[in-house]
Amino acid sequence: MRATVLHGPKDVRLEQVLDPVLHRPTDAIVRVVAACVCGSDLWGYRGIRPTAKPRRIGHELVGVVEAIGADVTTVRPGDFVIAPFALGDGTCPHCLNGFPTSCVHGVMWGGLDHEGLLVDGAQGELVRTPFADANLVATPTYPSDELIPSLLALSDVMGTGHHAAISARVGPGSTVVVVGDGAVGLCAVLASARLGAGRIVAMSRHADRQAVAREFGATDIVAERGPAGVAAVLELLGGIGADAVLECVGTRESMQQALDSTRPGGFVGYVGVPAGGPELPIGQMFGANLNVAGGVAPVRAYLPELLADVLDGSIDPGRVFDLTLPLDAVAEGYAAMDERRAIKTMLRP
Amino acid sequence: MRATVLHGPKDVRLEQVLDPVLHRPTDAIVRVVAACVCGSDLWGYRGIRPTAKPRRIGHELVGVVEAIGADVTTVRPGDFVIAPFALGDGTCPHCLNGFPTSCVHGVMWGGLDHEGLLVDGAQGELVRTPFADANLVATPTYPSDELIPSLLALSDVMGTGHHAAISARVGPGSTVVVVGDGAVGLCAVLASARLGAGRIVAMSRHADRQAVAREFGATDIVAERGPAGVAAVLELLGGIGADAVLECVGTRESMQQALDSTRPGGFVGYVGVPAGGPELPIGQMFGANLNVAGGVAPVRAYLPELLADVLDGSIDPGRVFDLTLPLDAVAEGYAAMDERRAIKTMLRP
Repeated sequence: MRATVLHGPKDVRLEQVLDPVLHRPTDAIVRVVAACVCGSDLWGYRGIRPTAKPRRIGHELVGVVEAIGADVTTVRPGDFVIAPFALGDGTCPHCLNGFPTSCVHGVMWGGLDHEGLLVDGAQGELVRTPFADANLVATPTYPSDELIPSLLALSDVMGTGHHAAISARVGPGSTVVVVGDGAVGLCAVLASARLGAGRIVAMSRHADRQAVAREFGATDIVAERGPAGVAAVLELLGGIGADAVLECVGTRESMQQALDSTRPGGFVGYVGVPAGGPELPIGQMFGANLNVAGGVAPVRAYLPELLADVLDGSIDPGRVFDLTLPLDAVAEGYAAMDERRAIKTMLRP
Repeated sequence: MRATVLHGPKDVRLEQVLDPVLHRPTDAIVRVVAACVCGSDLWGYRGIRPTAKPRRIGHELVGVVEAIGADVTTVRPGDFVIAPFALGDGTCPHCLNGFPTSCVHGVMWGGLDHEGLLVDGAQGELVRTPFADANLVATPTYPSDELIPSLLALSDVMGTGHHAAISARVGPGSTVVVVGDGAVGLCAVLASARLGAGRIVAMSRHADRQAVAREFGATDIVAERGPAGVAAVLELLGGIGADAVLECVGTRESMQQALDSTRPGGFVGYVGVPAGGPELPIGQMFGANLNVAGGVAPVRAYLPELLADVLDGSIDPGRVFDLTLPLDAVAEGYAAMDERRAIKTMLRP
């Protein structure tokens, strides 16, 4: 089969690799129907995270089950399935606690599982899925092509934006600020609107992203960043800051902006993968009771409720995909996101 | 009147100072019935926080109202009152949000108010209380002498321990670890038991504090610290960490121990005043969804419900006082806490 391999900075290639096979009775083989490029894939693509040796990449996919191991009971060949970006065994204490992202047998697409076996990256034609019962979620029927983008968004960005909102306790009437206008930030706007937020300020300098943010429920747009952005937010929110600030970037600057925009006693819900390891200023947090919650999103736990809303048309997170390419144009898919010509690239094998 | 003045490291003196007077119609003058020494007072006493010039000290008190300004309506001369350690105006957005600790006109005992007027320290005979209606809470009747310690504990340590527990979402059945066996840590044990925690592990190396922790509801004691303490906690809690860890110290080491003892998706509720500015390791937090909530406790907001429980005998936080001295022995009160001969010193003017 063909699969995407990251070789180093700006060097991502579609290559011929071995087809995956069922290794364990709990495995399933899934044929990828759609995958995509994540903002976090760009850390490696840009060389911010070094690539020691070529590696499979991509962690978001929907597909059709092609084969299952003897112990798999919840999906069968032919099922259309959504796969979360982080895979758990479904039975360890952390999985049972709702945090499969901390599973003792956990693995991400493109990584090595707990026995050192490769789990294929999502940007390819086929993937071996460990613990298929615990991870794959089948749709009731085979979806129409128009639904594919929104279903694919459930594998990561929509669940991640939702996690930011849940972590920051967004609820009816909340005032919310979203830092970051990538796909996750936009989904955080949508998640906040879905949870009943009263005011949603999207921080964005790009007209195309501002438009999606408005569609998703943003009531206000702030184009400024840093202290000027904070000042604009405070002016919009009566000088006191937001109940909930959703940090969807992951830099020291974005986290500081989030903290500075939060009202005393409020929450920063953060899902931006920390890049460059920003540490948190506990003195500022302590003095104003600024709470920081979030982390790597346990999207599998959120899949059933969000899937129901996609299927009944309540939410359309697939709007974040503004570029669709065949899988063999994967390099262009990365370049378009890197150069901000696209919000998010969908790849069709 | 006489009041305590901190001059520098290990140099705290009871001195003759001017009596306070009513400056504003919202002020009240309170005669201190009991005050105490806080663990955070020791940062200055030990020279960890420098003392640029002599300053009034003490921020916990109960007393009797002696005089009120023309606009004060909720207390009257003769009332026995509890004063929270942080004073707010009761009307700003942060006060209305439940965080008087962030009041735009906020001040602490011993500090200068928003117009630059001294607010007396609590370790003295009299205090001027700004915004008396917003801050002082009167008991229904004049309390018996046995109740004084528990009422005094409501001015800071009990409300602060409760804030740690509330911030970490302690509830029925929670597994809880309390880091720090000072008065706040012990009150955090009591608060957790009051909120229905199922398992409460107190970290303590001192027999006297362990005994109070047991009385307050600790189900387990761990004497080890650092990595050994974390290992002991994990062994007690099935290897997965606690739902809630209450950090009641404020050092980098104690915060790290707290984070390392928290299960993925769990909460650190922290109220230890950050000493030496520990920053938080966001990479670790992100990977395991370790949430950090808390800060300077808005004890005024918690006073009514905790006072009700003290008055009906449900809780007895005054147990943390194991040394009572006359106010003129204040220096010995500090020394006893500094040398860990006392958990907490009560001072009677």
